[in-house]
Amino acid sequence: MKIKASIVGAAGYTGTELIRILTAHPHVEISRLTSRRHENTPLEEVFPRLAGSEAGALALTNTDHATVARDSDVVFLCLPHETTQDAVPDFLGKTKIIDLSADFRLRDPEAYARYYSSAHKRPELLDGRFVYGLPELFREKIKGADLIANPGCYAQLIQLMLYPFKDHIERASVMAVSGMSGAGRAPVDPALFPPASQSLQSYKINKHRHRPEILQTLELNEERFDFVPTVGPFMRGIFATAFVEADTPPAIPAGYGASPFLRVKESDVQLANVVSTNFADLSFHAGKADGTYIVQGAFDNLLKGAAGTAVQNMNLMFGAEESEGLRFTTPLYP
Amino acid sequence: MKIKASIVGAAGYTGTELIRILTAHPHVEISRLTSRRHENTPLEEVFPRLAGSEAGALALTNTDHATVARDSDVVFLCLPHETTQDAVPDFLGKTKIIDLSADFRLRDPEAYARYYSSAHKRPELLDGRFVYGLPELFREKIKGADLIANPGCYAQLIQLMLYPFKDHIERASVMAVSGMSGAGRAPVDPALFPPASQSLQSYKINKHRHRPEILQTLELNEERFDFVPTVGPFMRGIFATAFVEADTPPAIPAGYGASPFLRVKESDVQLANVVSTNFADLSFHAGKADGTYIVQGAFDNLLKGAAGTAVQNMNLMFGAEESEGLRFTTPLYP
Amino acid sequence: MKIKASIVGAAGYTGTELIRILTAHPHVEISRLTSRRHENTPLEEVFPRLAGSEAGALALTNTDHATVARDSDVVFLCLPHETTQDAVPDFLGKTKIIDLSADFRLRDPEAYARYYSSAHKRPELLDGRFVYGLPELFREKIKGADLIANPGCYAQLIQLMLYPFKDHIERASVMAVSGMSGAGRAPVDPALFPPASQSLQSYKINKHRHRPEILQTLELNEERFDFVPTVGPFMRGIFATAFVEADTPPAIPAGYGASPFLRVKESDVQLANVVSTNFADLSFHAGKADGTYIVQGAFDNLLKGAAGTAVQNMNLMFGAEESEGLRFTTPLYP
Amino acid sequence: MKIKASIVGAAGYTGTELIRILTAHPHVEISRLTSRRHENTPLEEVFPRLAGSEAGALALTNTDHATVARDSDVVFLCLPHETTQDAVPDFLGKTKIIDLSADFRLRDPEAYARYYSSAHKRPELLDGRFVYGLPELFREKIKGADLIANPGCYAQLIQLMLYPFKDHIERASVMAVSGMSGAGRAPVDPALFPPASQSLQSYKINKHRHRPEILQTLELNEERFDFVPTVGPFMRGIFATAFVEADTPPAIPAGYGASPFLRVKESDVQLANVVSTNFADLSFHAGKADGTYIVQGAFDNLLKGAAGTAVQNMNLMFGAEESEGLRFTTPLYP
Repeated sequence: MKIKASIVGAAGYTGTELIRILTAHPHVEISRLTSRRHENTPLEEVFPRLAGSEAGALALTNTDHATVARDSDVVFLCLPHETTQDAVPDFLGKTKIIDLSADFRLRDPEAYARYYSSAHKRPELLDGRFVYGLPELFREKIKGADLIANPGCYAQLIQLMLYPFKDHIERASVMAVSGMSGAGRAPVDPALFPPASQSLQSYKINKHRHRPEILQTLELNEERFDFVPTVGPFMRGIFATAFVEADTPPAIPAGYGASPFLRVKESDVQLANVVSTNFADLSFHAGKADGTYIVQGAFDNLLKGAAGTAVQNMNLMFGAEESEGLRFTTPLYP
Repeated sequence: MKIKASIVGAAGYTGTELIRILTAHPHVEISRLTSRRHENTPLEEVFPRLAGSEAGALALTNTDHATVARDSDVVFLCLPHETTQDAVPDFLGKTKIIDLSADFRLRDPEAYARYYSSAHKRPELLDGRFVYGLPELFREKIKGADLIANPGCYAQLIQLMLYPFKDHIERASVMAVSGMSGAGRAPVDPALFPPASQSLQSYKINKHRHRPEILQTLELNEERFDFVPTVGPFMRGIFATAFVEADTPPAIPAGYGASPFLRVKESDVQLANVVSTNFADLSFHAGKADGTYIVQGAFDNLLKGAAGTAVQNMNLMFGAEESEGLRFTTPLYP
Repeated sequence: MKIKASIVGAAGYTGTELIRILTAHPHVEISRLTSRRHENTPLEEVFPRLAGSEAGALALTNTDHATVARDSDVVFLCLPHETTQDAVPDFLGKTKIIDLSADFRLRDPEAYARYYSSAHKRPELLDGRFVYGLPELFREKIKGADLIANPGCYAQLIQLMLYPFKDHIERASVMAVSGMSGAGRAPVDPALFPPASQSLQSYKINKHRHRPEILQTLELNEERFDFVPTVGPFMRGIFATAFVEADTPPAIPAGYGASPFLRVKESDVQLANVVSTNFADLSFHAGKADGTYIVQGAFDNLLKGAAGTAVQNMNLMFGAEESEGLRFTTPLYP
Repeated sequence: MKIKASIVGAAGYTGTELIRILTAHPHVEISRLTSRRHENTPLEEVFPRLAGSEAGALALTNTDHATVARDSDVVFLCLPHETTQDAVPDFLGKTKIIDLSADFRLRDPEAYARYYSSAHKRPELLDGRFVYGLPELFREKIKGADLIANPGCYAQLIQLMLYPFKDHIERASVMAVSGMSGAGRAPVDPALFPPASQSLQSYKINKHRHRPEILQTLELNEERFDFVPTVGPFMRGIFATAFVEADTPPAIPAGYGASPFLRVKESDVQLANVVSTNFADLSFHAGKADGTYIVQGAFDNLLKGAAGTAVQNMNLMFGAEESEGLRFTTPLYP
């Protein structure tokens, strides 16, 4: 039996990455792919790169939410934040939801309002019914969940790096470099692209929206955490370095070993080893002073950082093998 | 039943790309992976990027050819030219061979000597028993073959672009840009890499070793063909432009339509549409003068230009579906 | 005595490149830098990269054309085509003009209308009073000129490559790869940038607007010329390959030898050798057949292809040394 | 009157960058350019990119050190470490020396032995007679010096970032990303280049040779400093982020304001703003906790990180304007 899966907002980077995975997933039948701007347009017309592929023959439609809900066992929401708050009630109780926006990741409406510059319209839904979809930490809750809030890309990697120190973090300072695809398919300021292709530049230091997710999971005080997001001259991937002061060495959670996609490395982490795969690589070094640690992590922001983890969550929710459809474990190289 | 496949010279770019494909191929069981420099070393020790993957658990060994032949239904030879001439007799008559070197592509020993700067040591084997492994043109012969000479990367793309004009070519002038992976894993002059990463530069104009393959298949006179190979600032892919004078319009061979991996496009060819897939994209435009044509083509040099076509050949030789194991048809994007 | 120079439309790539050159030019005093969107804004506020430089202290203003004309010995027009047709009369007869738009390059209003999709508003000015500003070919006319139409980037390089065959060209087929800066600072479709950063793609084959300039200078019949413009994964530079059939070998014009910026190379042209300089490198090879030639050329599209040649023209118009202000002849490397 | 300057070991990245600067320096006459592998070879034969430039006409020679010393007011040593220890005595007392190797940066022979894996052969010269050539901190001493130890690239940037906290640093943790040119012209493992062109990877965490220079200048205890050097997918530049705990806010030294090349920015530092210039950009942010700071810095590793600072030192030593020959302050863009 196949899982009937739909994607709402299927034309962005995350949506098309989901399509790439789901069309090759042995237990999935794609039901609806929606996009407000298209009415029954074959994907290969919108994305010529898909011509001749299974994905290319699928159609983007402007299907209403009720129909999508009726025809789906699970719906992946790839909508902007705020928009998602309006859309979620159309699906609640009718189909399982994996939401890739930020709207249901935080449980504190005030934190949401502060970081997203607008009051949450459905604060009553922030009561924990959406399970935070980070399988390596919350695998058991995800298995029983109908509603998943898929983590932010930076947030997921940094949580995986810092969770082994949970409850013992004196201070954590993180510098993370993301590729340009992190900006999405419709960049606000296109004029930034040419210089970005040869530059590094930090932005939203200590103000990035993935910050409160990290604090929430780690139950960490605001003041103990500095976060410097940075954009670098490459397309895919995030490479992060954390300097940690903690009163114990890292304790790798059991859920890490149980994950098919986490590699704790003795040697140094390399971004090229994970791009195009669903792996996250981590390394833990002792710092120069007692009680200090240098932690590095890397993954593909569109895969393990977004669509890959979303499918991992789907597999868990439906009782499939966690790695099903995600075993493209050998990276493109060179 | 599984095809027992081995790779001799498995540690180069083509070898590791073959491993990537074959470990996911449903009808293949990898038997031996040999490398002179390793004795029973897990691949993940040599290539940390493979840790935790099915490929990573396989071992590189320095197994003798007799053992490889005994344990294989097919052997992929990924050895340098000349070396291959010494190795082939160890496998002849014992197992099917798909040779990715240049040694058995040409039928004329003198052409070999001229382009490869040394006399061929086994000219008696250049009698046609090795079938030139370009499936879109020679599918039926490949099906019955035991010995395949897999085409050169530039050669394959240019043949696909020019074959529709065969026997009618007055003149063909080709400018082809290849990514840096075309130089292989052990570049002769490492000092070239930094500038190459930001430059374009042609080399071996009209002297490139893939030139005689093209002339042989097209039965084209030396003087009718100019070929400008060029290296560009990217890793994977070849993007080629041909200016053709011919006394008829292009006639697309039936074998193109029968190929799961050839796309003749109305619109312009884009390299990003094929990199990381086994597709070759082609476009045919009329030139400004009567009887002139502008043809463009693009593919991934390590996939359709090498390892992908090799597996396509294997599928045909063993009666499998031609696209088996090669249906990663959606490119990584962005 | 200093040349008082102004730039109208100073905020685009060409304008800022001109500022970079002119602030270091020993005989130039920058008078006015205009931009419709700014009123007396220091350049370093608009472009933080200029902070602390001589250029950064200059101001962008929305000065009217009459004032600019009054305060300038020469004005560089960096406006879009069509807009320029409206602006030129404000300066005619009042100051020397170097126009970097396409509006006064063609002498045939019909060719203009065909390639630029609108009728020329000032066809009476297309009578030759604007000298086509390609110094290597028209140095003497430029010396006496008050009005210069600065060539298009592709157009300039291709003319330099083909002019040695003038009056003898049977057929010329050109494939030219330009970096992404060729698209200007305000790309129409930002969504193209991420794939472009890893792709090659041709566009406007035989329809590019630089085409008629080339035909005009070479007095070449439409049907004898095919032109394939292509965008590649790098920022600066154009690398072009021409396949030429001609009934004589190339005859290098005297003006080439007299140019401080043209290098005819024995060896292969490399893009990295010219980017960040005002050099154009050319090479001429014999093709395989008698009467065929392979010509390659490369330069920096923003320097020799635009701002650099504009300053070369200014130097000639004012009797200065042709290379004055342009002797940054050693490229940034690596 | 001109400064007669020579470069010993002129064929590497730093040597050719020095040539690029010195040929355009109004007060310098290049005397000798030596390279063991060349005997009177014009630079343009070795580096075709220099053809037609003033630099290209200069010759590389295998001149003995005595002759170089006799013919020079100052010699730039661009030799590997250890080799430099043998060469320095040939020049001592005969000409001024600016040493770009690491051999005379440290004053503690034991620190040298520990980081460079060999005993220093001239420990008696480590008595302070070589002035550490960081002009923003040691301008006055440099003015009177005959012997300069030019700082390491990472070391210089990180010292500029941390010096404002000197004597108040509780802990400093630095993550710095360098472009590939940092590896020099003769990379040890060429096979690293293709992946490096698309990867990020740290190396020698807390073991990098620039580490002891930083500790020496800051008089900082080993345990208070963590340093994560990283190589990124671009050619030029270093972009560094420091997390600092200190018991006072940063106090910008007077020498910073006096430098023509230091910009303390309110906004975020961008690598593209400094590459191809001699600027170093710095920014100082408050961290989330009291007494914590986030400091960022960027410069061009071959210019301000090496050859540019060397020329700045030369200017100071000879009483010239500090910025002479270095006023290419507008970066190449895009």
